[in-house]
Amino acid sequence: MVSAHNSAGESPRPSARQVRYELLTLGDELLLGLTANGHLTFIGSQLGRRGALLQRNVTITDEADAIAAQFRESWARADVVITTGGLGPTCDDRTRDALAEVLGRKLVFDPVTEQAITERFSRLGRKMTANNLKQAYVFEGGGVLPNANGTAPGLWLEQDGKVLVMLPGPPNELQPMFTDQVVPRLAALGLLLDRESYVQLRTAGVGESALETKLQPIFDRAGPGLSVAFCAHQGSVDCRVSSPSGALTQSQLEGVAAECVALLGDDFICYGHDSLARVCAELLRTQEKRLAVVETATGGLLAQAFTEVCGACKFFAGGVVCCSNDAKMQLLDVPECLLMQHGAVSDEAAVAMATGAAETLGADYALAVTGFAGAASTGQNGNPIGTIFVALFSPAGVWSKKLSYPGPRPTIKVRAVNAALDWLRRELLRAQRGEATPARRMSAMQ
Amino acid sequence: MVSAHNSAGESPRPSARQVRYELLTLGDELLLGLTANGHLTFIGSQLGRRGALLQRNVTITDEADAIAAQFRESWARADVVITTGGLGPTCDDRTRDALAEVLGRKLVFDPVTEQAITERFSRLGRKMTANNLKQAYVFEGGGVLPNANGTAPGLWLEQDGKVLVMLPGPPNELQPMFTDQVVPRLAALGLLLDRESYVQLRTAGVGESALETKLQPIFDRAGPGLSVAFCAHQGSVDCRVSSPSGALTQSQLEGVAAECVALLGDDFICYGHDSLARVCAELLRTQEKRLAVVETATGGLLAQAFTEVCGACKFFAGGVVCCSNDAKMQLLDVPECLLMQHGAVSDEAAVAMATGAAETLGADYALAVTGFAGAASTGQNGNPIGTIFVALFSPAGVWSKKLSYPGPRPTIKVRAVNAALDWLRRELLRAQRGEATPARRMSAMQ
Repeated sequence: MVSAHNSAGESPRPSARQVRYELLTLGDELLLGLTANGHLTFIGSQLGRRGALLQRNVTITDEADAIAAQFRESWARADVVITTGGLGPTCDDRTRDALAEVLGRKLVFDPVTEQAITERFSRLGRKMTANNLKQAYVFEGGGVLPNANGTAPGLWLEQDGKVLVMLPGPPNELQPMFTDQVVPRLAALGLLLDRESYVQLRTAGVGESALETKLQPIFDRAGPGLSVAFCAHQGSVDCRVSSPSGALTQSQLEGVAAECVALLGDDFICYGHDSLARVCAELLRTQEKRLAVVETATGGLLAQAFTEVCGACKFFAGGVVCCSNDAKMQLLDVPECLLMQHGAVSDEAAVAMATGAAETLGADYALAVTGFAGAASTGQNGNPIGTIFVALFSPAGVWSKKLSYPGPRPTIKVRAVNAALDWLRRELLRAQRGEATPARRMSAMQ
Repeated sequence: MVSAHNSAGESPRPSARQVRYELLTLGDELLLGLTANGHLTFIGSQLGRRGALLQRNVTITDEADAIAAQFRESWARADVVITTGGLGPTCDDRTRDALAEVLGRKLVFDPVTEQAITERFSRLGRKMTANNLKQAYVFEGGGVLPNANGTAPGLWLEQDGKVLVMLPGPPNELQPMFTDQVVPRLAALGLLLDRESYVQLRTAGVGESALETKLQPIFDRAGPGLSVAFCAHQGSVDCRVSSPSGALTQSQLEGVAAECVALLGDDFICYGHDSLARVCAELLRTQEKRLAVVETATGGLLAQAFTEVCGACKFFAGGVVCCSNDAKMQLLDVPECLLMQHGAVSDEAAVAMATGAAETLGADYALAVTGFAGAASTGQNGNPIGTIFVALFSPAGVWSKKLSYPGPRPTIKVRAVNAALDWLRRELLRAQRGEATPARRMSAMQ
């Protein structure tokens, strides 16, 4: 097995990155697009944050032959193979048998696992059907990863100088099993580091190609040992710097990143993976301010962005989701005459909604989003689908702006949310520095 | 190339399913878990709904050698290879060059594409940087798929009796390009059908193993030509029946499914892929009723589930997202003394929230969700994390129930939302049949 050199400090980077990890995600429901492949996202990020880059993810059908053929190939190529799915009780759960055959391992009945399954059913007050006992078969000489949140245990096997990890498909079973049991076992074998394999910057306000052009002189100075990657999201662009060859040390990578940050100014959101909402939350908490939101077109997404942040109650005063004039008026005292005159999708309505939300919910800041996100709406008042008004209420005043996004409904919603969040972030940064808010188009409402 | 027999009617199923599709998704950000692999979900479902099952999805790194090696393998095995990502302007966009080399095709500069890119920048009022021109290189003798939502066009190539489709990575560019341009081209070649390759039932209220046990006699009668697959979600289980060998006709599959539906009663949600919220929406629309929601622990997810449905304004009266006692009291007239006495996470609070939401927003039905979803909250009043109270207000009365879910915060939130939706669905079904609501634990509040 390739084992990582756990050397610390400024020596060339250790090679946990060079351990070859492959992930096999099984299930026709993935290939039919019925379930998102969240396992790739979860396991990839868990490995990435421990200095390992997943080399390959293969998703194939539930057929036993296809599983066996693909596993044989991955097992020959990789150091660690992780499989997800196909361990359950039903007829289409075929992974355990298929892999046992390729590995030449016997499956043996494990009474401890049987007891755990039986106890789970009796605890939930459900009758256990016979097909569940299939899940008590484990590799002879292998390890068992108990499943606190479901019936099928995970399986662990070291053979041929390699590691096989088999995990159940449901995310609520897989995820705690991976972080609590698999990561410590892999770390104990020296197959993971204690830090990321790259430095990531999140940015907003600059397009992907313009960002590269802007930062290129910094990258050129760092030399050919630097590897750079960009990833455009809806309203932000991530830039990652790494050095797969180990030519640049961690602190040299951090130096490159710091130069980029200095050049980017307020277009720099954060290092790492924090969401825009989390960055805003941190600024609100530091400044001891509270936020309210009100939204039509984004239908709860904006509130959801903030309530996902730990300890949201500290800064989140509440949110209102409406799609009719009634609800807006009832809850937020938006005057009916204003909605009649300007329409619910207008600068004036957005400003009134933000102001009403701040006042009704007793918040220092408020964001309002109203617009036509498409599909359900057809646009009106000369505003086509994709027209969004965002208003920001702050201690310094209230403003709105009109945005326009092409694309399908989900895209428009996410971009509108991100535009609102980024506006709030910039305003909170200015407030933190004690700067005056620059003059912008101010609505007639204030 | 394997071409589909487009025979109609009750003959053995045509073989669009036997066309071998492979999807290569490129980008380190996928393997690092920084971006969800939504392309698999989208393209897999688009193909599945047109009678084709994606055979394999491989995600690999951005390195040119890895891309070339994987493409060579897929091209040898498949009839249609679809790639996503790596067509953009930056240094890590290497797919076009890597594939051209494997295929022995020249890349030529396309002035029409150059013009489209230049015009896009000038329309957006942005300065075009030189790296963008890389995107104007296309396969000699190949097709170009214009990109209305971004700079990089898609590429189409027929060679060696196979089809190569190269798509840009951003979902808002890829998705319309796939449905508007790629699907019609594939259909014209006879590589897609006009219907799904399976019949799917969505169910709630029965666990995966119990569902299989319950339905097994029906499957046994249908014979060995039937293929059955189950997929458990958080609070629902899908069951798909198909006949990859063609032994069963489409109407025989539909007959099997109909037997299952009859046996399942109200545990049957719907055929196909509709969300619980969409099924509830349809029932509300048919019965001309309106719904309001109020939520703490689920933070906007419940509102979001309904506002995602087309034409939500017709039945959705509005939503309130709160995480403090203040907001609840201000917006929904929940008495402070009630919250002081029973706590915000209690049967009493849930009932008062649902009632307040229905009355304030003028709705016939209201759902309230309050609870401890974990991480941000630590539980209190003897209620551990994972404790959720759901209340349902209806023309027939108002009830609450206490639920308890293990698992991480996102799981608890999704399960709570699905429990609320399923309760509403069953109540609307009863109302539709004119049945009395069965006696259940009624809160002291009503």
